[in-house]
Amino acid sequence: MTTEAVSRPQTAARPDPSGSSPRSGQPLRVALLGCGTVGSEVARLLIDSSADLQARIGRPLELVGIAVRRLNRPRAGLDPELFTTDAEALVGRDDVDLVVEVIGGIEPARTLILSALRHGASVVTANKALLAEDGATLFTAAEDAGVDLYFEAAVAGAIPIVRPLRESLVGDEITSVIGIVNGTTNFILDKMDGEGAGFAETLSDAQALGYAEADPTADVEGFDAAAKAAILASLAFHTRVTAADVYREGITDVTTSDIASARAIGFVVKLLAICELADPDADGQRSVSVRVHPAMIPRSHPLASVGGAYNAVFVESRSAGRLMFYGPGAGGSPTASAVLGDLVTVARNRVRGAAGPGESSYAARPVSPIDDVVTRYHISLEVADVTGVLASIATCFAEHGVSIQTVRQAGRGSDAQLVIVTHRARDAALSATVRALRTLPAVREVASVMRVEGDV
Amino acid sequence: MTTEAVSRPQTAARPDPSGSSPRSGQPLRVALLGCGTVGSEVARLLIDSSADLQARIGRPLELVGIAVRRLNRPRAGLDPELFTTDAEALVGRDDVDLVVEVIGGIEPARTLILSALRHGASVVTANKALLAEDGATLFTAAEDAGVDLYFEAAVAGAIPIVRPLRESLVGDEITSVIGIVNGTTNFILDKMDGEGAGFAETLSDAQALGYAEADPTADVEGFDAAAKAAILASLAFHTRVTAADVYREGITDVTTSDIASARAIGFVVKLLAICELADPDADGQRSVSVRVHPAMIPRSHPLASVGGAYNAVFVESRSAGRLMFYGPGAGGSPTASAVLGDLVTVARNRVRGAAGPGESSYAARPVSPIDDVVTRYHISLEVADVTGVLASIATCFAEHGVSIQTVRQAGRGSDAQLVIVTHRARDAALSATVRALRTLPAVREVASVMRVEGDV
Repeated sequence: MTTEAVSRPQTAARPDPSGSSPRSGQPLRVALLGCGTVGSEVARLLIDSSADLQARIGRPLELVGIAVRRLNRPRAGLDPELFTTDAEALVGRDDVDLVVEVIGGIEPARTLILSALRHGASVVTANKALLAEDGATLFTAAEDAGVDLYFEAAVAGAIPIVRPLRESLVGDEITSVIGIVNGTTNFILDKMDGEGAGFAETLSDAQALGYAEADPTADVEGFDAAAKAAILASLAFHTRVTAADVYREGITDVTTSDIASARAIGFVVKLLAICELADPDADGQRSVSVRVHPAMIPRSHPLASVGGAYNAVFVESRSAGRLMFYGPGAGGSPTASAVLGDLVTVARNRVRGAAGPGESSYAARPVSPIDDVVTRYHISLEVADVTGVLASIATCFAEHGVSIQTVRQAGRGSDAQLVIVTHRARDAALSATVRALRTLPAVREVASVMRVEGDV
Repeated sequence: MTTEAVSRPQTAARPDPSGSSPRSGQPLRVALLGCGTVGSEVARLLIDSSADLQARIGRPLELVGIAVRRLNRPRAGLDPELFTTDAEALVGRDDVDLVVEVIGGIEPARTLILSALRHGASVVTANKALLAEDGATLFTAAEDAGVDLYFEAAVAGAIPIVRPLRESLVGDEITSVIGIVNGTTNFILDKMDGEGAGFAETLSDAQALGYAEADPTADVEGFDAAAKAAILASLAFHTRVTAADVYREGITDVTTSDIASARAIGFVVKLLAICELADPDADGQRSVSVRVHPAMIPRSHPLASVGGAYNAVFVESRSAGRLMFYGPGAGGSPTASAVLGDLVTVARNRVRGAAGPGESSYAARPVSPIDDVVTRYHISLEVADVTGVLASIATCFAEHGVSIQTVRQAGRGSDAQLVIVTHRARDAALSATVRALRTLPAVREVASVMRVEGDV
């Protein structure tokens, strides 16, 4: 019962009309920018998997240079001759076909990528910060040069999400993308949920275990997730969204009480990157909202069971319905897998004289401010247990046009705790309601306020 | 807080060197073969979403003909002039750029697709049966003609799994793909698990609800899942696997007792399509095993919570680790979404004079017979409750080289029930053990035998 497969060479179907790719059968030359956790794994795989990569592309890949900041670190298994500190000279070489950028950050990554594109190389990058800040400049440069810019590794590590959004779902109308796209914060929130520990203590544990950086700001304040949200929204809605467009709250203010409160009503707290396409307005225009904040989601929601440092992206579209993509969102090996997948794809394109999809931003949609976002709130109040308190609170909601879905009350001596979950309303109305609640004499404390997402 | 995006036209970066695509700015002409549940939805979307599709491709799509078996059915919203019963003439038109095949089955689909490819059209198909039986012929024809053959809709409906395997993970080494790829059987097993009902009764319910066909053979006997398994294994392992290579057991013999037995040990019964890459043998050759059968998996496994008619595919690879793709596996709209995604992709390729990835079968791996597959068994025995019975049974396992992981015993008057879960062993050894158990005097009945998969 064996296959009768005959191995056929993966020859180029057509010559490259631009004449810029190397001679038939010659190796495609790869320059690597950065040799940290991801870069060193990419280099290792380029060497260890060279036979398979060659068979899949139709030409060998040859690693011709690795740009690093310092030459003095030992790098096991890699030829010392490959290393250089002159990254600009490496991307300026005329014989480089493919450039992999895994330095991260805005500069010098942007200058190097632009130089590589202008020199006719296709580029694979994992740089979410740069794409979210100034992707348009990079995409335009790639389009002008007729080369590829691929970036599967920039969002959710090894999880294929860029290709599904750019290609698989490109005939559909995506209406929302909700992701757990930062492993560090998911690890922390998952541990707080499981162990009842506080944020500061759990962050220390995460740092000790290597799940959080010494400076955790980019993760816990939501900057990393916001960059990914901008990229996801741009792809899903065929528009340009930058990191500056993304409303952002981190998880530093999430308390054990928030988490216990969520648990009590069958919910769990997650840091979500939420991208939504609004219904058409009076002029037929459809705006998008893009935001990152902690939120309570029902434990029955597919994202609720995404534990530890895993990532997942939940996509809803008009025809396909509800899809979820799940996997490791970070780490050297998973990120290197995504980089290599892109590298083989752009190499195949080069061998065939083709280019993959460029930027699609024709829809040019406005981004709604957070005030206009329609969502739900969970509000936990400490109130005086006196007659009429519920009436005064309910009046406060009604005056702001916010409808209450559920109220739970628990007496505690002379005090009571009220847990209120609202119906959907404009965020501005919800936050105005909370401000007004704080001024009510019967309200001793607004103990917890959190958005509720993921209706199922 | 609005984007400053400027809408740029999606112009072709390069002219088409083959000269076979239409004049710049002219529509790409689409022929549709089949107008059932999926086809009518594809036609509707081509018309309703024409502006978005044009913006995403850079050229309009024009539906020029729909081949159907009979002209006398009413088709709301579609120009009667589009319909023809002469499918061969439609695919033979020289002005057709793109052909969508959603007829299904082997013939006439194969002849029509081959004719379309030879006439220079790119083809999008949802035809799993044909791809699993004779994909090689189609891929070769597409390669020879320098056109695309895309088939995202053939496996797991709207879930992007073909592109992730062909492109996103193409730089990685995939070691296993385990899927719930048939919605009908998952609906039935999920309902049996939830309600304790038997197979026949649940099948009737599924038929009444439209989740199962009047003739359910293709689904419940595992033929549909086996075709998908062959496609998944071919893509994941860069080899050719046909439906005939796939070991197949359906769910008709799954009993309420099997399901209760699984539940008692924290497992759930699912019909799985399993594709595994074996470790290298003495000659360095790596075989693959591809099989479809009901299996018990731990309730903690990500596939265990895939309910109703949903599909999911769980992929393990060396670098990326564990990934899961989840969504609706069938239905007119989800399948149409996958078809449209492919249609936009191949249209973009045509506008750019490019072609997507072809078949990758260079690895030409042998397919292991089921006897050589290494797996675990769950065995439930009715035995006489007499001294020495466990010893005789344990000896039987040991004689066949099968190691027992757990034994649970429950007395029942003069009888006892033994539930045994084995360690991993060759399937031949496991099935020989079961045959031998049936001959032991102390064994009154082998009540249930099922494979156990999905170690987590």
